[in-house]
Amino acid sequence: MSTQAKPGAVRVAVVGATGYTGAELLRLLGQHPRVHVDTLVGHSRVGEAASEALPSLTGTPLGARTIEAFDAAALADRVDAAFCALPHGASAPTVAALRDRGVTVFDLSADFRLRDRAVYEAWYGEHGAPERFGEGGLRARRGLPGAAGGRGSGGRPGCYPTATVLPLWPLVRRGWVTLDRPIVVDAKSGVSGAGRKLRASAHFSEVANGIRPYATAGRHRHTPEIEQELSAAAGAPVRVLFSPHLVPMVRGLLAMAYVEPTDDRLTAEACVAAAREDYAGSPAVVVLDADRPPDTQWAQGANRAFVGYTKDPRTGWIVAEGAIDNLVKGAAGQAIQGFNVRFGFPEALGLELPGAWP
Amino acid sequence: MSTQAKPGAVRVAVVGATGYTGAELLRLLGQHPRVHVDTLVGHSRVGEAASEALPSLTGTPLGARTIEAFDAAALADRVDAAFCALPHGASAPTVAALRDRGVTVFDLSADFRLRDRAVYEAWYGEHGAPERFGEGGLRARRGLPGAAGGRGSGGRPGCYPTATVLPLWPLVRRGWVTLDRPIVVDAKSGVSGAGRKLRASAHFSEVANGIRPYATAGRHRHTPEIEQELSAAAGAPVRVLFSPHLVPMVRGLLAMAYVEPTDDRLTAEACVAAAREDYAGSPAVVVLDADRPPDTQWAQGANRAFVGYTKDPRTGWIVAEGAIDNLVKGAAGQAIQGFNVRFGFPEALGLELPGAWP
Amino acid sequence: MSTQAKPGAVRVAVVGATGYTGAELLRLLGQHPRVHVDTLVGHSRVGEAASEALPSLTGTPLGARTIEAFDAAALADRVDAAFCALPHGASAPTVAALRDRGVTVFDLSADFRLRDRAVYEAWYGEHGAPERFGEGGLRARRGLPGAAGGRGSGGRPGCYPTATVLPLWPLVRRGWVTLDRPIVVDAKSGVSGAGRKLRASAHFSEVANGIRPYATAGRHRHTPEIEQELSAAAGAPVRVLFSPHLVPMVRGLLAMAYVEPTDDRLTAEACVAAAREDYAGSPAVVVLDADRPPDTQWAQGANRAFVGYTKDPRTGWIVAEGAIDNLVKGAAGQAIQGFNVRFGFPEALGLELPGAWP
Amino acid sequence: MSTQAKPGAVRVAVVGATGYTGAELLRLLGQHPRVHVDTLVGHSRVGEAASEALPSLTGTPLGARTIEAFDAAALADRVDAAFCALPHGASAPTVAALRDRGVTVFDLSADFRLRDRAVYEAWYGEHGAPERFGEGGLRARRGLPGAAGGRGSGGRPGCYPTATVLPLWPLVRRGWVTLDRPIVVDAKSGVSGAGRKLRASAHFSEVANGIRPYATAGRHRHTPEIEQELSAAAGAPVRVLFSPHLVPMVRGLLAMAYVEPTDDRLTAEACVAAAREDYAGSPAVVVLDADRPPDTQWAQGANRAFVGYTKDPRTGWIVAEGAIDNLVKGAAGQAIQGFNVRFGFPEALGLELPGAWP
Repeated sequence: MSTQAKPGAVRVAVVGATGYTGAELLRLLGQHPRVHVDTLVGHSRVGEAASEALPSLTGTPLGARTIEAFDAAALADRVDAAFCALPHGASAPTVAALRDRGVTVFDLSADFRLRDRAVYEAWYGEHGAPERFGEGGLRARRGLPGAAGGRGSGGRPGCYPTATVLPLWPLVRRGWVTLDRPIVVDAKSGVSGAGRKLRASAHFSEVANGIRPYATAGRHRHTPEIEQELSAAAGAPVRVLFSPHLVPMVRGLLAMAYVEPTDDRLTAEACVAAAREDYAGSPAVVVLDADRPPDTQWAQGANRAFVGYTKDPRTGWIVAEGAIDNLVKGAAGQAIQGFNVRFGFPEALGLELPGAWP
Repeated sequence: MSTQAKPGAVRVAVVGATGYTGAELLRLLGQHPRVHVDTLVGHSRVGEAASEALPSLTGTPLGARTIEAFDAAALADRVDAAFCALPHGASAPTVAALRDRGVTVFDLSADFRLRDRAVYEAWYGEHGAPERFGEGGLRARRGLPGAAGGRGSGGRPGCYPTATVLPLWPLVRRGWVTLDRPIVVDAKSGVSGAGRKLRASAHFSEVANGIRPYATAGRHRHTPEIEQELSAAAGAPVRVLFSPHLVPMVRGLLAMAYVEPTDDRLTAEACVAAAREDYAGSPAVVVLDADRPPDTQWAQGANRAFVGYTKDPRTGWIVAEGAIDNLVKGAAGQAIQGFNVRFGFPEALGLELPGAWP
Repeated sequence: MSTQAKPGAVRVAVVGATGYTGAELLRLLGQHPRVHVDTLVGHSRVGEAASEALPSLTGTPLGARTIEAFDAAALADRVDAAFCALPHGASAPTVAALRDRGVTVFDLSADFRLRDRAVYEAWYGEHGAPERFGEGGLRARRGLPGAAGGRGSGGRPGCYPTATVLPLWPLVRRGWVTLDRPIVVDAKSGVSGAGRKLRASAHFSEVANGIRPYATAGRHRHTPEIEQELSAAAGAPVRVLFSPHLVPMVRGLLAMAYVEPTDDRLTAEACVAAAREDYAGSPAVVVLDADRPPDTQWAQGANRAFVGYTKDPRTGWIVAEGAIDNLVKGAAGQAIQGFNVRFGFPEALGLELPGAWP
Repeated sequence: MSTQAKPGAVRVAVVGATGYTGAELLRLLGQHPRVHVDTLVGHSRVGEAASEALPSLTGTPLGARTIEAFDAAALADRVDAAFCALPHGASAPTVAALRDRGVTVFDLSADFRLRDRAVYEAWYGEHGAPERFGEGGLRARRGLPGAAGGRGSGGRPGCYPTATVLPLWPLVRRGWVTLDRPIVVDAKSGVSGAGRKLRASAHFSEVANGIRPYATAGRHRHTPEIEQELSAAAGAPVRVLFSPHLVPMVRGLLAMAYVEPTDDRLTAEACVAAAREDYAGSPAVVVLDADRPPDTQWAQGANRAFVGYTKDPRTGWIVAEGAIDNLVKGAAGQAIQGFNVRFGFPEALGLELPGAWP
């Protein structure tokens, strides 16, 4: 099916279109005023209409499009940019093939997030495009995690790192956090974070009535990314005891970080002020008033991160809180934000809609 | 807080801004390219910031606005149009006061949906603005329920009638449905349809693990509206056995209508073709291929109605299916659709985003 | 692991122990005062501790037991009775092998529910033990569906048929229902009804926020069983338009049947009285007062069926309602009820606990 | 309605029968072989049948009973023991009135859990029966939190303290936990923990799609109870940074405690061994193998606590995990356990059923 590109639009491909992040990219890109989605690339459902795989697109122009197989050369002829929503490992060679042909790639996998190759290999195994390792990464604009994109076609942070690093960054970079012991981060994710692949841990009947920890205690692959970013902010090694949970909801991710302040007179209000200063130019970050912890439901469907701070009057510790929609600010929305910055559009273009509440 | 209206925008008020439908109106109107939301009117939370009542608006321009008390004269000075999201009964006098002062009102209550005052009084009691009874109503453009708005400041269909009438209309108006017995409509709604008022039947623990019928068997107030519209389509009285259920989900509404065809050779494909003909110009109605019944999750957050048809090969009956998001196509989105038509904008303006899936 | 049988207990095996119905059988049989669970037979997890497959059994005596492979001869040496919780098709030869060796089998599959082999083959394909076809079936004690078990080691009704037939039976057998047109049955099931096998239609993220019809319009395999039982009650062919839905909850099944009475003076109260008469001796059937439709949450975890009747004053039709926990009264509990009757125990022995509410 | 007491049964009253804990008490006590439930006392629904308030009891003997007003003298004539499931504050005078008349009371409120009256008053305000303050409390048998009941008619631990103290107790009492900084406890509860009273924070639509912290950072009233019990175990003051969350599920409570070991060679296996030693005689406590964190769904409906330990290999910290059903082991079941001990019955009598999974 041929489609008419919007005038002045960037032609893009979505690679990995049939997963949940792909679905979210298509939902948002389909309405983006400066994007023309030229090609939908899939793996398992090539030749089907997109609406077969993604039923919510039924009856939309994108829904009528056909899922195509990956062909780097053909893509390079047709598009200026590509969003890659592939699993880690599979992503790196795909990204490399496109970049080699001059396509600007926004990668949503973990393959280009880490800056230390040994760390990557320890957590993920061999890298799929070692000659390009370290490209991108998380060197965000002005060093701020709330800012989009960063360098060229760089990586973007994972869902857990986004919700965790955003509230901690302003504290850590100011030296307000005691670092001699690990920072405890207890995080909670909706089940869509586990992706579309069938697995017992996402089977409705075994998930819907309970909450469970998983990859407890430093076993989750997002741990090194969180430590990398916080260490960069601190200028010193930061260790994190990262403990994720699966929550019986589709979307939403909450990170709760428990920090001992270096000065126990530190108030929640001071943390709020610091974060507001740091994120003043970040349209996707909302810093809440002190002692108003966020609910993930506020962010549902929106490219918005809610950041909050609460002080425990009894222990003097600070709780730093981050809430996002894992599929939007934690994945698709964040990538589009990076795209906007890279192509010179307003950072929030096409991403303004607040969450659907309730 | 003063805000700058967009150039060329219609200035509107949202009356009843702090309920769920109000929240949805603000979510959508805040991004509508031709709307400036001038005033947020509430009842119980006057003086609070909108984000106190509607936390998903925190950090948005609308969230910073103050909820104001209703003042018809002041509103008439400031706005061209108003959306009224009030309970039935309370709505009629409010609508009347605004219309008396020249404001174009889009009413989301049941107060102006019925055309027979005796029927209204039998189901709802005394009407709050009897001199204006019958204004508006559902005389939709070209007689089609999928079309928006209709006459001037008319009413809009309720959530159950929308999902029920859309799939039945093409069949009934063609005389394809046996009418000597009632049409059984078994409908299922998410809990947000019960509104924001606290009540045991929306208390999480008593709702989350079960499905229940309520107002079973012709006791639901949407029954006469469904019959009114179908009777108009049929040119003869249509009776409906309407049976709603409460489903443990926030949004979504599914209507299943079981019809005996007048000619048992009627196919699902013929029904699909008829509906596609009728809804060809209706951007918010998606007619599915035969035998592909819709899932309400496809419509989540979107101003879209999915219409489907299945034939039971054993009995020869047709199942007519309608699925919507009750808060969007069943309420806020539909009202904005009517606004677009009334003010000469493209019918789907500001309503293009497909559902957030999953 | 050797275990000490309770004195006077019947030694039983659970075949298909690692599915959801198996889990429920073990939960209930483990506490049954006259049952000793001797053997747990599985297919895919042989050699594992039961608690590996069924985590809720961790720390219980049954949880420590090892899942064994099926061996009919060995079982026949060790047990008096077996519960077979296998998929249809796989069940028949297993049941046959055990019965051939003198084991009393309580089969939870569909393989022995139908009495007409051509009907079985039309819906399920070839039967796995044709020489035993028709054994068991649903010839319930005194012809009542609420009564347990029936003949010898017969089949037991499926989950949908249980919830559907229970409320209709008293009306149909009294000739109170017009039968010239199909009875519309709109049924709703929790996701556990789809079993433990991974499939997209039970993947949390695609199910949790919506309701969907499936196998719409006479395509569900429980249709012939419902018709078989109702036809037997009526003494005449009864056709059913059966329309099941998937509801975002783990357990629970609601059947709503819409019937035109042969005499429009029929009241809901008369239906209630008839059902109370029929089910007077049935401890697992609760007939509700008129116009109090049941919520499936009331039955959660309990071997109880709630039966209700509502009259639509506008059309004169009766809505007959049945609500159960699909895994208990719809499967495991019902089978144990049959076991109790067969072995001369009180029908409700080990099944007395009401539902966990909320 | 007169009822026949079981021979040899203890006659009991349930005071506060119409709340969620009352419902759970009735579910379990109704089947307890040594209990006769004589009287159901309520506040708001006096004169109604119990099944009106608690629909799952419809059709059971208890469901047919009438809710009575509280009358201490009349109760003392009729019952040996009472379970009080009242809100804190209201409970103390009720408990006192019954104890003054010789009734053995099992109190489920917080009124008799704390041993320091100043602490009680700081968190709850004035005590309702100060002359009896300190009676009961948590002096559990042999000092073990997994053991039931303790002294006479003492209090029982709250839901959060149960899940938190059980896994920490064996570590803290052995001096294995560094105590110079607060122990971070991040806990998650199902919504039933908020009770039956209508409130926005339990309104389905505002809760079902998100997770939220509440009473963050030492503001939750269970904090002092947790510290009291752990300090008693440690023989030194233990501070806790307690951070509860509301999870979109009805039942279930998970506590995750992050502890720095005094010796970083401490293994998860050693923690498991210690807990198994401590809880060897506690039928309601299941200590899981190392690195197998519990899911609250495993405990659904059961009087069982799952305790687990995981070691973070990177930081050397231990994660101590506790999962319960807040309404059973966290409330009703625990009280019945205490009753069993007090009246000389086996501790698990009437509480043997494992969780309903899935």
